Amino acid sequence: MDTKILHVDAGAGYDIVIKPGVLDDAGAHIRKALPRAKRLFLVTDSNVSPLYGPRLAASLEKLSFEVHTRVIPAGETSKSAAELVKLWEWMTAHGITRTDAVVALGGGVVGDLAGFAASTVLRGVDTVQIPTTLLSQVDSSVGGKTAIDLPAGKNLAGTFCQPRLVLMDPDTLATLPESEFMSGMAEVVKYGCIWDADFFAFLAQRPTREALTADIGHILYTCCDIKRQVVNRDEHDTGLRMILNFGHTLGHAYELAGRYETWTHGQAVAAGMVTAAELGQTLGITEPGAAGKIRAILTPLGLPTHIPCAFGYMEKAVGIDKKSAGDSVTLILLEKIGAVRPLKLPKAEVLDTLRRMTEA
Amino acid sequence: MDTKILHVDAGAGYDIVIKPGVLDDAGAHIRKALPRAKRLFLVTDSNVSPLYGPRLAASLEKLSFEVHTRVIPAGETSKSAAELVKLWEWMTAHGITRTDAVVALGGGVVGDLAGFAASTVLRGVDTVQIPTTLLSQVDSSVGGKTAIDLPAGKNLAGTFCQPRLVLMDPDTLATLPESEFMSGMAEVVKYGCIWDADFFAFLAQRPTREALTADIGHILYTCCDIKRQVVNRDEHDTGLRMILNFGHTLGHAYELAGRYETWTHGQAVAAGMVTAAELGQTLGITEPGAAGKIRAILTPLGLPTHIPCAFGYMEKAVGIDKKSAGDSVTLILLEKIGAVRPLKLPKAEVLDTLRRMTEA
Repeated sequence: MDTKILHVDAGAGYDIVIKPGVLDDAGAHIRKALPRAKRLFLVTDSNVSPLYGPRLAASLEKLSFEVHTRVIPAGETSKSAAELVKLWEWMTAHGITRTDAVVALGGGVVGDLAGFAASTVLRGVDTVQIPTTLLSQVDSSVGGKTAIDLPAGKNLAGTFCQPRLVLMDPDTLATLPESEFMSGMAEVVKYGCIWDADFFAFLAQRPTREALTADIGHILYTCCDIKRQVVNRDEHDTGLRMILNFGHTLGHAYELAGRYETWTHGQAVAAGMVTAAELGQTLGITEPGAAGKIRAILTPLGLPTHIPCAFGYMEKAVGIDKKSAGDSVTLILLEKIGAVRPLKLPKAEVLDTLRRMTEA
Repeated sequence: MDTKILHVDAGAGYDIVIKPGVLDDAGAHIRKALPRAKRLFLVTDSNVSPLYGPRLAASLEKLSFEVHTRVIPAGETSKSAAELVKLWEWMTAHGITRTDAVVALGGGVVGDLAGFAASTVLRGVDTVQIPTTLLSQVDSSVGGKTAIDLPAGKNLAGTFCQPRLVLMDPDTLATLPESEFMSGMAEVVKYGCIWDADFFAFLAQRPTREALTADIGHILYTCCDIKRQVVNRDEHDTGLRMILNFGHTLGHAYELAGRYETWTHGQAVAAGMVTAAELGQTLGITEPGAAGKIRAILTPLGLPTHIPCAFGYMEKAVGIDKKSAGDSVTLILLEKIGAVRPLKLPKAEVLDTLRRMTEA
């Protein structure tokens, strides 16, 4: 697989470098992107650290960076205010300056947490994202959203802050557990649904991890390219970017119903996309058969196409969701595979329709 | 005194309204600036709340805003990560949405803390600043810096985030203790030093609180106008804005020496400006006599012109300061009253010169 480079215009502008083995060249890439940085604050987690931490640190030290490393406990519970504060205190205790940078090595939790800390310590230092999971490679490392969770919900505090460089090593996906790889595939399928019917068809022909891995470079590039196009047009999430939330409002209800334990984010999004397509069909907005096509692509990947969910969670998800202002909710509904439309609907109508669908 | 309105172009652009009794019109001003807001999250402190909290809340409720109020303990210790997290949890527990807003009523601590919380909750909601101290009116409510303190130092985490509206009621200054009023005067004098020799002379002719209060509208307007001009040219604090730190690096050393208890920020800045002028004279950059003029204006206001300080604190202040990158430090030195120049100097030279000055 060749090196693929995507340039994103958001923020100061930055490159996404997709290359097998790029972990070993990370130092050189960072030196080029951030010529003034002396110290790098490497944040990773307890799963990723033993697999790739020393290799990355060696690559950075080879370029004479002073590397400080902090390993957070793996898992969503680390995306917390407590861990954020610990990162701030760690960085400032080691005398971080404005020209230094934070390097986030890991999945979405590490990227979101370290990105938030970096964008606020000294009111902002540079961030390099090195995502190691499929989900973070196609989603959270591109777009410049950072966040932590609060007791009232996920991602409720954070910043918009573009990284200065994103390095993706597809080889790191080899160590992902099956369920986590497939969870990432839900977001991959989402890009096909919202933007690119040809890509959707391409994925439909690759129903196994082996087949997907053989074309992983193309998959990563395509997803990042779609996200880049969307983010470039809407850096601060006030319009178009909403389409990236296809399947997410309902997915959020499923995550709440399972207390963020029963279902992974990707599993919840998978079922959320199917339900959103069914909702769109019921409302006469989505082309008949779309939900079936999505089910057909998700099933061989072992992703759920239906999640039972008490109605109160639907209400909560629709009510508290950051996208909702006042009494209406903006849902992202398909017109057909490859094309979506944000639709502002009264919350009551959405809930009524969902209730009727559930009881039918 | 007439209503004075200053427009600041930074961020989305916003007005600073300076008007006696504006607290009672706050609701109308906010409704006009933020037509979509329904809920207002009013943050104030235990000193200010009994004085102005109910009046402001009544003015907001008159315009049908749903007002939630949170009172933080008065004092710098509230500018902490712990209080920040409590604000996030409070806002999200009450279902804040992106079109709601945070209103900060109080001094710099309230403004910095509430502004930081607002700029990060849901990745950013609007902020209205209603500063009630002289220091916050002339300094921290204009310019869009928010922050909390960390164990390693002050203002070490925060954001750049412009408010959507600033309301200043000069009448609130009547309840300020003498020491706090005069502490604010240090920053007022700073604006004369760095930008406006005529304003410096104007202040020199008003050596009492009574005389200053009689012209407070002009004083507030002039300071905010200077800060506005500086911030407009350097929103993200990468160049010109440094001149606002005149007296602050050395002031920081004095604050450290007194553990932030012995000296107020303004007292430390007052002595810091004198020492910076003396340093500039020693280095041949500052016009001879400038330090004497600054001493002459500060003394009748009861502000210190010299603070004894162990050398270690100087080193610490010069070393950790956010403005410093690597081995050099950028100090803001006067050329003459009304004109400054940022000068990048080796840390060692600065410390040596200060050492010789101290021993002389």
